[in-house]
Amino acid sequence: MANKPGIPKGTRDFSPIEIAKRNYIFDTIKKHFQGFGFQPIETPSFENSDTLMGKYGDEGDRLIFKILNSGDYLKKTNEADLAAKDSTKVASQISEKALRYDLTVPFARYVVMNQNDIDFPFKRFQIQPVWRADRPQKGRYREFFQCDADVVGSKSLWQEVEFVQLYDAVFTDLAVNGVTIKMNNRKILSGIAEVIGAQDKLIDFTVALDKLDKIGEDGVKKEMLEKGISEEAITKVQPLFNFTGSNKEKLAQLESMLAASVTGLKGVEELTFIADSIETLGLQTATLDIDVTLARGLNYYTGAIFEVAAPKEVKLGSIGGGGRYDDLTGIFGLKDISGVGISFGLDRIFLVLEELGLFPDTVNNSLEVLFINFGEQEALASFKLMQQLRKAGYKADMYPDSAKPAKQFKYANKRNVPYVITIGSQELKENCFTFKNMKTGEQTTYGFEQILSIFKS
Amino acid sequence: MANKPGIPKGTRDFSPIEIAKRNYIFDTIKKHFQGFGFQPIETPSFENSDTLMGKYGDEGDRLIFKILNSGDYLKKTNEADLAAKDSTKVASQISEKALRYDLTVPFARYVVMNQNDIDFPFKRFQIQPVWRADRPQKGRYREFFQCDADVVGSKSLWQEVEFVQLYDAVFTDLAVNGVTIKMNNRKILSGIAEVIGAQDKLIDFTVALDKLDKIGEDGVKKEMLEKGISEEAITKVQPLFNFTGSNKEKLAQLESMLAASVTGLKGVEELTFIADSIETLGLQTATLDIDVTLARGLNYYTGAIFEVAAPKEVKLGSIGGGGRYDDLTGIFGLKDISGVGISFGLDRIFLVLEELGLFPDTVNNSLEVLFINFGEQEALASFKLMQQLRKAGYKADMYPDSAKPAKQFKYANKRNVPYVITIGSQELKENCFTFKNMKTGEQTTYGFEQILSIFKS
Repeated sequence: MANKPGIPKGTRDFSPIEIAKRNYIFDTIKKHFQGFGFQPIETPSFENSDTLMGKYGDEGDRLIFKILNSGDYLKKTNEADLAAKDSTKVASQISEKALRYDLTVPFARYVVMNQNDIDFPFKRFQIQPVWRADRPQKGRYREFFQCDADVVGSKSLWQEVEFVQLYDAVFTDLAVNGVTIKMNNRKILSGIAEVIGAQDKLIDFTVALDKLDKIGEDGVKKEMLEKGISEEAITKVQPLFNFTGSNKEKLAQLESMLAASVTGLKGVEELTFIADSIETLGLQTATLDIDVTLARGLNYYTGAIFEVAAPKEVKLGSIGGGGRYDDLTGIFGLKDISGVGISFGLDRIFLVLEELGLFPDTVNNSLEVLFINFGEQEALASFKLMQQLRKAGYKADMYPDSAKPAKQFKYANKRNVPYVITIGSQELKENCFTFKNMKTGEQTTYGFEQILSIFKS
Repeated sequence: MANKPGIPKGTRDFSPIEIAKRNYIFDTIKKHFQGFGFQPIETPSFENSDTLMGKYGDEGDRLIFKILNSGDYLKKTNEADLAAKDSTKVASQISEKALRYDLTVPFARYVVMNQNDIDFPFKRFQIQPVWRADRPQKGRYREFFQCDADVVGSKSLWQEVEFVQLYDAVFTDLAVNGVTIKMNNRKILSGIAEVIGAQDKLIDFTVALDKLDKIGEDGVKKEMLEKGISEEAITKVQPLFNFTGSNKEKLAQLESMLAASVTGLKGVEELTFIADSIETLGLQTATLDIDVTLARGLNYYTGAIFEVAAPKEVKLGSIGGGGRYDDLTGIFGLKDISGVGISFGLDRIFLVLEELGLFPDTVNNSLEVLFINFGEQEALASFKLMQQLRKAGYKADMYPDSAKPAKQFKYANKRNVPYVITIGSQELKENCFTFKNMKTGEQTTYGFEQILSIFKS
């Protein structure tokens, strides 16, 4: 039993300092979620397999962690499937539950199951781990937290406006200045597909267009031609090769370019409402930028598409994203419930804050004062003072053993404690304690009765 | 795909109000954990199977949820085992990971893996879900949160003293008055076993003795005799049949009864130190009670044993417990690390608070003000005020659609919003808003510039 222990690949232990930093991010996001009227829900870590399977494509199904049935799970399996070692067929016979793959499908399931108790529009947030049997690599884990806010039950575009403000509020509060909130609209992408006359080439088109900065207009056009997009189509979307200026200007270009597409114009109208509202309301530190190459979630988003880019000085890509999906709950039989949501990429935001040195110093203050232990009677006196401090809300501790003072002070340093209190035999006689500021080294002696007043000042 | 969705048995969805109540409990516990110098860690939801298997007995092994390997997991399985449908043998070939069964074994694993980075004594707390394939029943779930605080690396009894205070602090803060913190000591139980000359009958003995209140002295003795405990042995522990009085008196009785057992006397000495210290330091609302029938965790506790009983008016039994274990990390090859810890039973504490009506009314305040939506321009004006409130830290929301006011007010009522603000066309012209107190029905009109000052007062 004394094997050297380890943890499964792609998973992590979190130490106290890591937890403190992660909670700093979670708490900030949660504060704003709640400030914006979102309410928390939580769903079970595992779902019935049929709730999850088939919702994320074949690749998703493959990445879902399946839980082995309990008891004599092989009893009722099909002998032929077993003999053929048909892992797929056998899986559905020996596993009925699976670990949550994201928070969206469980949320849809929750809405459908609780539709009679929910007051729509329902603004929910959810911060829970998800699991994916992905190949682990730098920044990609098999267990990680998702951090989602969604509204279901209203098609109002004020919600898109609000999500832009929410991103701005959170990143401003985290002191991450200079994030770009990129927005697109599925209907604009559909309009572009109509104009280029190639619905099936849309992804090739946006992927190529996205490289404009890197390979230039000629490079992009060359790639488009190679992918089978016609010269004529490329000419029609010529404005996109010089797609600069303010959001207003971009929208004007799109409006004229998509004049022939009813859907496209609807997308322009939606984006215009959002961009105009944000222009009027203002953002604190973020920038809203219309980006027609943004095509994430193309398969399920039906309206707005969001993506948040980290400040340019950190090379980290997207730190959040989301969009509107017109039929989230349809997969569980509840039609016509429109939803729109965003998520925050916790692990990447963590890296951004780490890289830019934005975690506050106080994040590491796990203890405010340590009492040094000089033996039973001295310790009892310390405990009396300590319990006053704890009752008053201070984080206080006593070294449990009367070890050598040097060892105890070393512990105080490692715990990063700002103040240390000593009550030795002499102090005990005189009902006083020595109060040491660990930064300055300054020591002062006070009477027992002064314990609270020192900390208040 | 439109099957009526469900969730796996023994699991739960948590609605916003349930989350708010649970967080109220978690936050209170966490605040005191941190006030007492404990630091948070988190471990992965699943561990390598060999970390967990064999640590909880055969019954435990059976209740551990196993995760199916990814990919073609049957490929390398033994054909004979498959053909024999040997679920146990096959399980270890097709599953290498398992869901956490408790927080103690992962903590031991964490300590061993991080022993060089940890500053001992290490006071950690951990609040995470665990999973058990138990038969679900009232109050017993397959996924539930554990809430543990442990110290490792010191044998000081001040830690036991501190845990009694910690229980007292948490339950006092939760307004749960009248909890009883029961304490025993493994060494006292060993002493009793020595005295009755029947180590193997110890459980039978404590189980019978525990029924004293219900079946009386004669009933208990009868049961003991039936279980094979001798008349002579029962005579030796006669004091336990009238085991009343103060803790001091109980300890005096134990001391004389266990005079012949070195181990037993050591246990009395330890308990005496703890009881005397608590007597001197005082408790706020809890009572410390020495209870020699307390035998939980007999297999692994080596010193103190704790159990917290809910106030007598709620029939719920134990709402917390813990103890000292002298060789927690030995299972992973790190010897001589003594630990002591306690846990809080969240689900039961929830029931206690619910039954005694102790959740504060404010727990449900998910929204402080709702703006009614009267159309695009009015909504824009509302958004401007709302963003001021949100920036100032208030929870504010606007109904996203300009639905009929009656519908919007109904929503406000359901959300339990104390204040509603309306900006109609007339108010918009006059740069003012109507502020309605939803409790009193009182309405007042204010200028836009007054928005923050109203909320401040």
